[in-house]
Amino acid sequence: MTMSTLLPFASDYMEGAHPEIIRRLSEINRIPMPGYGSDDICESARNRIRNACHTPNADVFFLIGGTQTNATVIDAMLASYQGVIAANTGHISVHEAGAIEWGGHKVLPLPHTLGKLRAEDVETYLSNWTQDGSRDHMVMPGMVYISHPTEYGTLYTADELRALHRVCAAHHIPLYLDGARLAYALAAPENELTLPLIAECCDAFYIGGTKCGTLFGEAVVLPRKNTIPHFFTIIKQHGALLAKGWLLGLQFETLFTNHLYETIGQPAIEAANTIRHVLRESGYRLFFDAPTNQIFVILPNQLLNPLAKEVSYSFWEKYDEAHTVIRLATSWATTKEETDCLCRVFKTLAVSD
Amino acid sequence: MTMSTLLPFASDYMEGAHPEIIRRLSEINRIPMPGYGSDDICESARNRIRNACHTPNADVFFLIGGTQTNATVIDAMLASYQGVIAANTGHISVHEAGAIEWGGHKVLPLPHTLGKLRAEDVETYLSNWTQDGSRDHMVMPGMVYISHPTEYGTLYTADELRALHRVCAAHHIPLYLDGARLAYALAAPENELTLPLIAECCDAFYIGGTKCGTLFGEAVVLPRKNTIPHFFTIIKQHGALLAKGWLLGLQFETLFTNHLYETIGQPAIEAANTIRHVLRESGYRLFFDAPTNQIFVILPNQLLNPLAKEVSYSFWEKYDEAHTVIRLATSWATTKEETDCLCRVFKTLAVSD
Amino acid sequence: MTMSTLLPFASDYMEGAHPEIIRRLSEINRIPMPGYGSDDICESARNRIRNACHTPNADVFFLIGGTQTNATVIDAMLASYQGVIAANTGHISVHEAGAIEWGGHKVLPLPHTLGKLRAEDVETYLSNWTQDGSRDHMVMPGMVYISHPTEYGTLYTADELRALHRVCAAHHIPLYLDGARLAYALAAPENELTLPLIAECCDAFYIGGTKCGTLFGEAVVLPRKNTIPHFFTIIKQHGALLAKGWLLGLQFETLFTNHLYETIGQPAIEAANTIRHVLRESGYRLFFDAPTNQIFVILPNQLLNPLAKEVSYSFWEKYDEAHTVIRLATSWATTKEETDCLCRVFKTLAVSD
Amino acid sequence: MTMSTLLPFASDYMEGAHPEIIRRLSEINRIPMPGYGSDDICESARNRIRNACHTPNADVFFLIGGTQTNATVIDAMLASYQGVIAANTGHISVHEAGAIEWGGHKVLPLPHTLGKLRAEDVETYLSNWTQDGSRDHMVMPGMVYISHPTEYGTLYTADELRALHRVCAAHHIPLYLDGARLAYALAAPENELTLPLIAECCDAFYIGGTKCGTLFGEAVVLPRKNTIPHFFTIIKQHGALLAKGWLLGLQFETLFTNHLYETIGQPAIEAANTIRHVLRESGYRLFFDAPTNQIFVILPNQLLNPLAKEVSYSFWEKYDEAHTVIRLATSWATTKEETDCLCRVFKTLAVSD
Repeated sequence: MTMSTLLPFASDYMEGAHPEIIRRLSEINRIPMPGYGSDDICESARNRIRNACHTPNADVFFLIGGTQTNATVIDAMLASYQGVIAANTGHISVHEAGAIEWGGHKVLPLPHTLGKLRAEDVETYLSNWTQDGSRDHMVMPGMVYISHPTEYGTLYTADELRALHRVCAAHHIPLYLDGARLAYALAAPENELTLPLIAECCDAFYIGGTKCGTLFGEAVVLPRKNTIPHFFTIIKQHGALLAKGWLLGLQFETLFTNHLYETIGQPAIEAANTIRHVLRESGYRLFFDAPTNQIFVILPNQLLNPLAKEVSYSFWEKYDEAHTVIRLATSWATTKEETDCLCRVFKTLAVSD
Repeated sequence: MTMSTLLPFASDYMEGAHPEIIRRLSEINRIPMPGYGSDDICESARNRIRNACHTPNADVFFLIGGTQTNATVIDAMLASYQGVIAANTGHISVHEAGAIEWGGHKVLPLPHTLGKLRAEDVETYLSNWTQDGSRDHMVMPGMVYISHPTEYGTLYTADELRALHRVCAAHHIPLYLDGARLAYALAAPENELTLPLIAECCDAFYIGGTKCGTLFGEAVVLPRKNTIPHFFTIIKQHGALLAKGWLLGLQFETLFTNHLYETIGQPAIEAANTIRHVLRESGYRLFFDAPTNQIFVILPNQLLNPLAKEVSYSFWEKYDEAHTVIRLATSWATTKEETDCLCRVFKTLAVSD
Repeated sequence: MTMSTLLPFASDYMEGAHPEIIRRLSEINRIPMPGYGSDDICESARNRIRNACHTPNADVFFLIGGTQTNATVIDAMLASYQGVIAANTGHISVHEAGAIEWGGHKVLPLPHTLGKLRAEDVETYLSNWTQDGSRDHMVMPGMVYISHPTEYGTLYTADELRALHRVCAAHHIPLYLDGARLAYALAAPENELTLPLIAECCDAFYIGGTKCGTLFGEAVVLPRKNTIPHFFTIIKQHGALLAKGWLLGLQFETLFTNHLYETIGQPAIEAANTIRHVLRESGYRLFFDAPTNQIFVILPNQLLNPLAKEVSYSFWEKYDEAHTVIRLATSWATTKEETDCLCRVFKTLAVSD
Repeated sequence: MTMSTLLPFASDYMEGAHPEIIRRLSEINRIPMPGYGSDDICESARNRIRNACHTPNADVFFLIGGTQTNATVIDAMLASYQGVIAANTGHISVHEAGAIEWGGHKVLPLPHTLGKLRAEDVETYLSNWTQDGSRDHMVMPGMVYISHPTEYGTLYTADELRALHRVCAAHHIPLYLDGARLAYALAAPENELTLPLIAECCDAFYIGGTKCGTLFGEAVVLPRKNTIPHFFTIIKQHGALLAKGWLLGLQFETLFTNHLYETIGQPAIEAANTIRHVLRESGYRLFFDAPTNQIFVILPNQLLNPLAKEVSYSFWEKYDEAHTVIRLATSWATTKEETDCLCRVFKTLAVSD
């Protein structure tokens, strides 16, 4: 097997799982389990998540990936004639290959502020819709989707989340939070959204595993019991039911033991802060500032190829004719060595530029 | 963690993965990989599968579970106005929560013969449809679905598969084979369908992993390149794309090293044959005889509870007022001890009955 | 324009509308109306239907055609994970080009008895489903669909309808009646199902217009107000909303003036009875006996071509190698002359055979 | 029947059909016809449309309404993983209740210029998409949708249409034109798009009937034969197939006799020009200028109620705190008397303001 010798900053899902997960998997690999999440490990994981969220009656379901989770939850919670409000930068708006529309629902895009939806924009949209004489010919907004951290790595404040919650509640539509990178929010000093606050303000949310220390898996939390009747069958219908459900239970049980989920993102945040600091010091411009594990840099185009010889990074967007925005992502698995190497690469490139 | 002490014969997906998979996973867990199956391990696994099938140009895709694979492949290969012919006992007809219909397609059920579709029944259906004056008001059959082994554990002969292939080819519709339990066919002495023969006769098929030694995963083989344009995007749209695709590559690379996939099912077949022998000797009636890893027994109802105290088994269907059909499944992980214990339990129950 | 000189018995929708409809249409053609059924004529039609059904609080909606109506109502009333039980001969099972599945729902076919569903079969199906350990992996039955008259021209008795109602109510799923040919039931002496009884036993039904005297149009009746929230938007979403909704109102207002709907089918029934009588007297075999406007005859194949030179009829199905079942349909527009001519043709063919 | 005495300018579908249509309908109402558009009148109408478009091999299909037509054509022409590019003001983007998404496809909205899509914006979007490294995770653009006249009443120039055609052809995706109000374009002196030019530049388009002189109906033209295989079945599947298809044939045959379709909009254009002239002269501000049958006026809010006592008009949007944009629509049925009355009303209101 050949393997990349590039520094791994292209995404936060390049490595496998937290070692403890692999250790436990090896340990119980041959023990027979009942299928589809009906095993004891899943139940233990559900209880640990209920405890962490302060929602003893929550329904908790384990799915496999983010797009799948969004498509299944959103389809399950919307009526057939409803759409979902999202920032026009939201993952469901752009990068899920139309999975929401494939399920029959329109994504109703609103302008974003650094990746975030503003409560007043949602309020205006919902009020206008309610007053529109043609509203029976339009898609009824039936849910608000946000992500935390956002696709831009930014964070909602507690006040912002509460304001969104109030708008949704006033209009009787659910608020859904995509926590694909939630561990990186929880590890950021700037973060104000605890799991209990999220559970208080949202009607549904998911705790991301794939990008936060598991091999795969996302934990859907429905703070109020029976929010989605027959969700098990809906998951099966969407092809999202894992036969060996205990694999998901095992991973989330591990993440929710000894507060691992709240700390696993710390190395990523520290590395990202170091990198941002070095970039600024070396004269690079950040596309925007964000306190989590994603770093957006505006690079002169002539640096792209030299960088690509040493670092695996992501193209984000064209900035202007001479510049490009790239994204670097750190993760729970990022090592100090990798971070130091990356910083050296950028310093060297800056000098040579 | 409490765990079941029942003998594990409820299904063939109760245990984790072949130890070699776990070993390799532990080994490469921290090595960074590119996402979505673009890594070298996946490419190696694809090549090994191409070799095993004698189809050097085949497209190979890795998905996560059986229902997901069926729903995604069938939706991708059918035109929007087409349906899929299947035995009325087919997994897609009964046990996938309507996933095919959720994708917009009707399952066109035909009567089965021990779980198998007969080529002449398919021919009759297709001919009648072609001649029906109302066919423009009906669902056009656009694919034939079979499973091997079938849901009843039975096997198609080479002649039967070739006959189905000829009927499909004559009517210009693809033949698709669901190989969720394919390893148990390959390990059965009665089996006539090799991977190359399947690749020759089918336009699409999948090699099952979940029930055949992996933690999860199914490998879709499309013998002719570009049979499904943009299948990657379709997989994403269906929520079936695993971020850490190398997990699937690693598992299938292992299964297709040293012919493991062709031998991994042998302990299951041996165990099943032993159990069937003991059951018959002890006076039990088999619901029908099948040469693979599933055993269907007609039990007097009064034996159900005593059995359930020692064995984890599956309810299959009511036989009559006094009898019930149950299913026992062996797997690659079934041990000689478990088989012996199970046989003793049945002998004891037979005596006491 | 050339026009057919064949005797028109191929279907019951060959002619336009009752003359009174055309007269009124000519009269008000240039009067401006508000759109989408918000006009006074629609409201009057809705009230007349409410009166005829003894359901003062019913919601009434006008759609355009039968398949459209079935697809829209069924999709609106089912949860996304539910299917609809129907006779395997039901229009939605066979002749709607998969419109129900296109909306994401499985048609769950049960065997028929002369086109009818039997309450005990539905009860058995629902009970078995409830007890099936795999039911969470199966399509949940969410509605029962029947047609009256059936696709075979047969009629439910009042007891049979009440029994179906009881089964549905016991299992908390709605009963839906497709009344595409309802006028021909109401005009048959054997019919026991009045509009009030249908409204009492069904959660939704539609009163057929297209085959019963209108140019087009079906009236959906939901006896209990707000059975389907936002049904207007759902109709629009399904492309089933007519801009000039008053066209539908005008036609149903006419049909529900002076009890026209209850009498408009009488000429069809009389003609059909005459034809059945003559066919039997002339030695023809009826495929089965049914008291409404459809006649199913088993013809020796050599009579098909001679008949086709004089009569427009429908192929129904192959009976055996030497015989074919054909369908003749009379309608509100069938004249005594046409009936007499048809009888003469059959008498002559019988002699020559 | 009560009827509105308001001046009818709320929409262009308030009246019935051109008198000649009603005359012919009365005449042939009782003549039996084969179903589903297989009659001679439909064939004649198709041929007349082929002639008018200079496309002797075109496929022509008749559907019932605009939303239905858009949803059916777009779903039929897109692959399951594709979306349709449209102006963010396009009818499919806003006012079809999510019918496109219900069919599984995303509407990809681009900014508009007075309701029009600009070829360069489409080119930029398509080029960016092609170069985007994440494009396999995004919705592939599979069609461009435009309307002529647009929802703002504006017209594409011949150069603009040709430019859009070139962009679509270069990217191998079809161009589809929604001609719901096409007759009002054809009757406007400013219009440059003839039917042959539209047929040359577009892969599919529909000639609007509902707003242009028929009771209902839209004629889909596919200039190249067999552009959509099995479109008949797809129409049926979408609930869009009219049993008495000859009703549609009759209406379009009439519109395409003696060039009626090209002239029927003239009274509407003349009336609209008169009204625009009087509005400007009386000091009203037009929201924007457009040469067809829709007039958008910025009114001080205090005029809304007085106007509503005499005129039926449409709310368009809020302009600012003190002003509202309203829409007035003329139609083929607008009389000189109605226009004069409307002008007097506005003059009087202007004086009193």
